[in-house]
Amino acid sequence: MKLVKKYIHGFVSEESLRTMKTQTEAAAGLLHSRTGPGNEFLGWLDLPVSYDKDELERIKNAAERIKKNSDVLIVIGIGGSYLGARAAIEFLKSPLYNNLKKDTPDIYYAGNGISPEYLNELLEICEGRNISVNVISKSGTTTEPALAFRVFKKLLEKKYGADGARSRIYCTTDKVKGTLKELADEKGYETFAIADDIGGRYSVLTAVGLLPIAVSGCDVSEIMRGAAVAMEELKAPFEQNDCYQYAALRNILYRCGKHTEIMVSYDPAFVLMAEWYKQLFGESEGKENKGIFPAAVNFSADLHSMGQYIQEGLRIIFETVIDIKKPKTDFFLEDDPENLDSLNFLTGQNMSEVNRKAFEGTVLAHSQGGVPNIVLELEDRSEYSFGYMVYFFEKACAVSGYILGVNPFNQPGVEAYKNNMFALLNKPGYEKQREELLKRL
Amino acid sequence: MKLVKKYIHGFVSEESLRTMKTQTEAAAGLLHSRTGPGNEFLGWLDLPVSYDKDELERIKNAAERIKKNSDVLIVIGIGGSYLGARAAIEFLKSPLYNNLKKDTPDIYYAGNGISPEYLNELLEICEGRNISVNVISKSGTTTEPALAFRVFKKLLEKKYGADGARSRIYCTTDKVKGTLKELADEKGYETFAIADDIGGRYSVLTAVGLLPIAVSGCDVSEIMRGAAVAMEELKAPFEQNDCYQYAALRNILYRCGKHTEIMVSYDPAFVLMAEWYKQLFGESEGKENKGIFPAAVNFSADLHSMGQYIQEGLRIIFETVIDIKKPKTDFFLEDDPENLDSLNFLTGQNMSEVNRKAFEGTVLAHSQGGVPNIVLELEDRSEYSFGYMVYFFEKACAVSGYILGVNPFNQPGVEAYKNNMFALLNKPGYEKQREELLKRL
Repeated sequence: MKLVKKYIHGFVSEESLRTMKTQTEAAAGLLHSRTGPGNEFLGWLDLPVSYDKDELERIKNAAERIKKNSDVLIVIGIGGSYLGARAAIEFLKSPLYNNLKKDTPDIYYAGNGISPEYLNELLEICEGRNISVNVISKSGTTTEPALAFRVFKKLLEKKYGADGARSRIYCTTDKVKGTLKELADEKGYETFAIADDIGGRYSVLTAVGLLPIAVSGCDVSEIMRGAAVAMEELKAPFEQNDCYQYAALRNILYRCGKHTEIMVSYDPAFVLMAEWYKQLFGESEGKENKGIFPAAVNFSADLHSMGQYIQEGLRIIFETVIDIKKPKTDFFLEDDPENLDSLNFLTGQNMSEVNRKAFEGTVLAHSQGGVPNIVLELEDRSEYSFGYMVYFFEKACAVSGYILGVNPFNQPGVEAYKNNMFALLNKPGYEKQREELLKRL
Repeated sequence: MKLVKKYIHGFVSEESLRTMKTQTEAAAGLLHSRTGPGNEFLGWLDLPVSYDKDELERIKNAAERIKKNSDVLIVIGIGGSYLGARAAIEFLKSPLYNNLKKDTPDIYYAGNGISPEYLNELLEICEGRNISVNVISKSGTTTEPALAFRVFKKLLEKKYGADGARSRIYCTTDKVKGTLKELADEKGYETFAIADDIGGRYSVLTAVGLLPIAVSGCDVSEIMRGAAVAMEELKAPFEQNDCYQYAALRNILYRCGKHTEIMVSYDPAFVLMAEWYKQLFGESEGKENKGIFPAAVNFSADLHSMGQYIQEGLRIIFETVIDIKKPKTDFFLEDDPENLDSLNFLTGQNMSEVNRKAFEGTVLAHSQGGVPNIVLELEDRSEYSFGYMVYFFEKACAVSGYILGVNPFNQPGVEAYKNNMFALLNKPGYEKQREELLKRL
């Protein structure tokens, strides 16, 4: 991951960036000294070297079993227990993963919402196919995944019997306590750990993300290798540290009133990664009435939807563009002798070259239109690059949050809707709140 | 579509809304008198009654042929020539449409980007399957769809011969002129019209959207019936007109500094509709350095990603929540005698009821947290409701744009990236611009 700064000229001066050195390094210092707010959630910081090697082997073995005996893996989880794995699989494999012919199972996500239609359709898709389930929940009592797990556990027990179901249910949960851990121990399900010191949105490089990713046929060791290299490289001083400079730039732009960041890519495989980015940064920074509003687009498609706004709308935005240098596959554009559509000016080259010109043309157009463009170059869509990128963003987010002056590791605001929902659902203990809410409805 | 205003109390007073009556009706007057800026693009305004009935029959017939002879329909188009159909099919059928067993063809979208990987994967998916192609482009020279059409035309000709390909290629294009129209006439492809007076983002109720939608098995006449009812009802005076009031409310909130609108739904089937909304409003309003920034979330999934920001982040946002009253299917939650996860407090009812409590709880939490919530009630996910909703948003967008003081029907900013891209790709005629751009890269 390499930061390209030339398309922020005219918006951010070199001097202004240099001025941020002290507070950025101070923020990084808070992180590394483990003395900042939220320091009980820093397990991700040295995870790329300190992770449980035996568990990684168990993950690989479980993935092999699932690949052998299943047509479909159902991943049950919400938020951080869902988005990272899905983003990784779409990025490393394809957004069309489930539609392509392959020798790995289809992977579907359940328990990340409360739509009955979606659940019914998943059950329909599972009909007549061999299924495994990976349920991911620290407590086991989060409404959405717990509801879905009830349904799929019953389905598996009906289809395979209690013993058969046991060999097809994998629980990623708290190491020692909680409803799901207890159930898993009682029933004999294999378990993987959700660490106490790694929050959901920082968990993709743990068993939470790695088991589904391994089932899709990715090399999870390579992911960890990329993250480990990032961990070392991104300790460099400010001047040589693209991660710190990215964190600083975001805050400079925020303070100029550019309080919406649009994550841009030119590959549909990045769409879910951008959702992961929105979760990571939005949940980390959006508190105490501040924080950059995270948004995302996929070009060139969205140049024909959000493109107009970005070019000429309210000047409250900046873009961060992921530039993937090497495509996974390419497509050579041959000349068409007829040339009725007058497109021969772009033939005789690979399609990725045309995509690159769209990227360059757009960055120039948008920056000229008043939108600072930060470019982050990524080598390719390999496991190694993915691991590097994840660590880069995780650290950038933590440092950026400390610069902003918030605890980047909590999410106090997520409880509000849950409490209201419980009260409205007549959950015992919420009677008083229920009365108040009913008056407001 | 019914507007619920109670969750904007405390942000917008009844008086403030009443004050907007004159300028809102004036904006609507500009529209209906066809005297406002962009009045050459008002074909959508009476489309629900004035549409070409013979063409609709041809659309239905073509859809029947495609359903009979194809396993896959490839829809080639970008922007307005892509998003509406996809949004409709996901909303009316399912976001998992291509993964479900069904008696209608899979539908994939090409030419909406320049990713070689995505194109290669589509070609892989087509292998060994019967294909039809619907290419949608007014001129036939827009880079992305024209490139994709070259590829799929060649594929079909190779697979079926020139005659076979002819019967499988459907062109939605200009009625009389342009590259694609000429090619279609020469080769004998069936054509459908893109009207001169309906812009891309307003085109889903024309052949642009209706042919793919009909192929998915939807009743397109019902869609037009819904739109026609909306067209009549939404001429009512301000006090009885939810569409006008929605347009007014957006502008009130924008003027209070709530310049980001988040479109919210609780059904994954709405995700692409929200993208359609972003295109419609973003491209219509984002100009002259103003306009509401359109964003979208899908709850409850995104309560665990963007939820924290919405609850407690920068107070620049308001939410517009689509409340679909009747689910397409439901799922009864049975008691679990073990109740290890303590979820029995929400059993003995349908899952849609739990989803509704999540909706109510969230609206209360977010509005209490400082985010005005506009609720739009929609009866169900039927074709009729879809047609009504599309017309509602189209008209709200036009009126809102006029209130804001922009031409809601042009998109001057979309040319900037195209011109740069052409110059960088050595397109003849762009030599001078190319030199300047190369200096900036």
